[in-house]
Amino acid sequence: MAVVESREWYLASYAPEGVPTSDHLKLRTVTLSLDSIPERHVVLETLFISVEPYLRSRVTGREDGLYTPQFNLNEVLSTFGVGRVIQSKDCDYVEGDIVVSPFTPFAEYGVVPSQLLTRKVDPNDGIPLPEYISLLGVPGFAAWVGIEVIADPKPGSNVFISAAAGAVGMYAGQLAKLRGCRVIGSTGSDEKVRLLKEEFGYDDAFNYHTETDFDAALSNYFPNGIDVYLDNVGGKMLEAVLNHVNKNAKIPLCGMISGYNKVWTEREGVRNLLNLIGKEVNMQGFMVGSYLHRFGDFAKDMESHLKQGKIGSKLKIFHGIETFLESLGSLFTSSNVGKVIVQVK
Amino acid sequence: MAVVESREWYLASYAPEGVPTSDHLKLRTVTLSLDSIPERHVVLETLFISVEPYLRSRVTGREDGLYTPQFNLNEVLSTFGVGRVIQSKDCDYVEGDIVVSPFTPFAEYGVVPSQLLTRKVDPNDGIPLPEYISLLGVPGFAAWVGIEVIADPKPGSNVFISAAAGAVGMYAGQLAKLRGCRVIGSTGSDEKVRLLKEEFGYDDAFNYHTETDFDAALSNYFPNGIDVYLDNVGGKMLEAVLNHVNKNAKIPLCGMISGYNKVWTEREGVRNLLNLIGKEVNMQGFMVGSYLHRFGDFAKDMESHLKQGKIGSKLKIFHGIETFLESLGSLFTSSNVGKVIVQVK
Repeated sequence: MAVVESREWYLASYAPEGVPTSDHLKLRTVTLSLDSIPERHVVLETLFISVEPYLRSRVTGREDGLYTPQFNLNEVLSTFGVGRVIQSKDCDYVEGDIVVSPFTPFAEYGVVPSQLLTRKVDPNDGIPLPEYISLLGVPGFAAWVGIEVIADPKPGSNVFISAAAGAVGMYAGQLAKLRGCRVIGSTGSDEKVRLLKEEFGYDDAFNYHTETDFDAALSNYFPNGIDVYLDNVGGKMLEAVLNHVNKNAKIPLCGMISGYNKVWTEREGVRNLLNLIGKEVNMQGFMVGSYLHRFGDFAKDMESHLKQGKIGSKLKIFHGIETFLESLGSLFTSSNVGKVIVQVK
Repeated sequence: MAVVESREWYLASYAPEGVPTSDHLKLRTVTLSLDSIPERHVVLETLFISVEPYLRSRVTGREDGLYTPQFNLNEVLSTFGVGRVIQSKDCDYVEGDIVVSPFTPFAEYGVVPSQLLTRKVDPNDGIPLPEYISLLGVPGFAAWVGIEVIADPKPGSNVFISAAAGAVGMYAGQLAKLRGCRVIGSTGSDEKVRLLKEEFGYDDAFNYHTETDFDAALSNYFPNGIDVYLDNVGGKMLEAVLNHVNKNAKIPLCGMISGYNKVWTEREGVRNLLNLIGKEVNMQGFMVGSYLHRFGDFAKDMESHLKQGKIGSKLKIFHGIETFLESLGSLFTSSNVGKVIVQVK
């Protein structure tokens, strides 16, 4: 009987607050049988797996905010990933196929129902495999939905993006620039400020650790006010933005990483929502899962931008499945640049 | 030379915090000449004048939130009112005409440019004059924009309205009921709870002074969650609502009276905006002035409902121009029921 040894990350205990540690998420080794998988399932060898901020909200042990279902205790984590089929009980897939799935197990190998495979990759299309979970994955799609679908800014609009050097922010800024907007980002280091301006085409950017008076910073960078704010952080930055919004500003709410490691009652309250009335602002929370009917348009757009060299990625690739905790922790510090991915094989 | 003595309210000093008092708003007597008015102006005798929460935001001495321009020191206050033309230098108006203007002086008499008169009232149309600044005025229009234009709820939707027995709330609840929604209100006294249920057709209502655990109250009144929240108060009630919103809920932001008497940094922060993302909620601030292109549709709708007896008003009429401060103060206590108006003549 063909078997394979596989290391996998599972939930040992919930982490209500703070960054999850090895008390909560643990690695174990299991033996998978390759022969006895059910019909319409495949065995995947995980190649690249996406380290998403939303994973953190699935191990709190409660539902408060993002409302993605909690992982069960002892369950293997899963998220967006690229894998290679090494065994198939589905006639649509053969050994060696490269596939994308939002339910890729955070493991070296895993059994996945073939209906959860969302894309078969053409290895000759010239797109590096990690881009399928970055530029063509959730971060790219979130940026596209936030900018193209929800904000829909006019050329010349003043666009502000927080966590601008993060996975969503780097694409959102480039998409807004392609629309002819003036784009400013906030980020957590001088190195990332440089990156935003030199590699991602931001008109300007500031380091929120050194420019700590957000109100003064926004006065400086937005003398004509803010038309669009793609919010990835929430809290004090959102509050500061609301003092600088223009009439009919749009605020797509993509994430609020400032709050993810706190129970909601401990989060920073936003005190100036009254400004939403005076300026008739529209604030729209969104989850990419509700826009899947637009995924084809998105993929066409982004592949076209990519092939024309109009959009780029910065990937932070951790090597080896054992790096997961370190990679997850990096999302919540200012050290992270671009899209965080673990290369498993 | 024909002259008339007129008492008028003017701004003596700004009131940054708290309810304005006689230190800030003062009554004086002036003598108006009726003969020397400019061309295309009329002299109005003020009959009914509207006491609006937004007036409070125009005497803070700063712009923070509602962004209506501040009155100047020494300037006579003006707002929505119904008046009688007693002298005219405009061929479209004759003595005795009854007119509506959003710039009616808070005075017994005043000179008004005729271009600021928005409607000439047909005295035979059977509509009581105060309704032109209530059901057919800003409160009715704000309720109509919030419910009919922005929220646009389906029959059976679960609708929550705060300050439900206030000028906007009483109409908003009735409009939502006419659409077949389930409508619950919060208000500040048991008497107003009774009024909402018995006179305005609310399915249920609660007194936020006695049911002080808003979260528990909303769990009780909304076992199936909230689809629409017309927010008139902001602060803690808005925060509680965000823990009970359904997927794709809509929150038209009409007013935030809990914050009007405080500088923004002293207002209650909303800590759970992350829920807007998980539930993909749309929050839309609005000012009725941006919907004037829909005023004709609104007036037709509301007059039709009124004539068919499908919608009613509760008016709180103070008698005599000297009652203004008392009437304004009543907006910020739980004593107020319905639309507050001063009958000047």
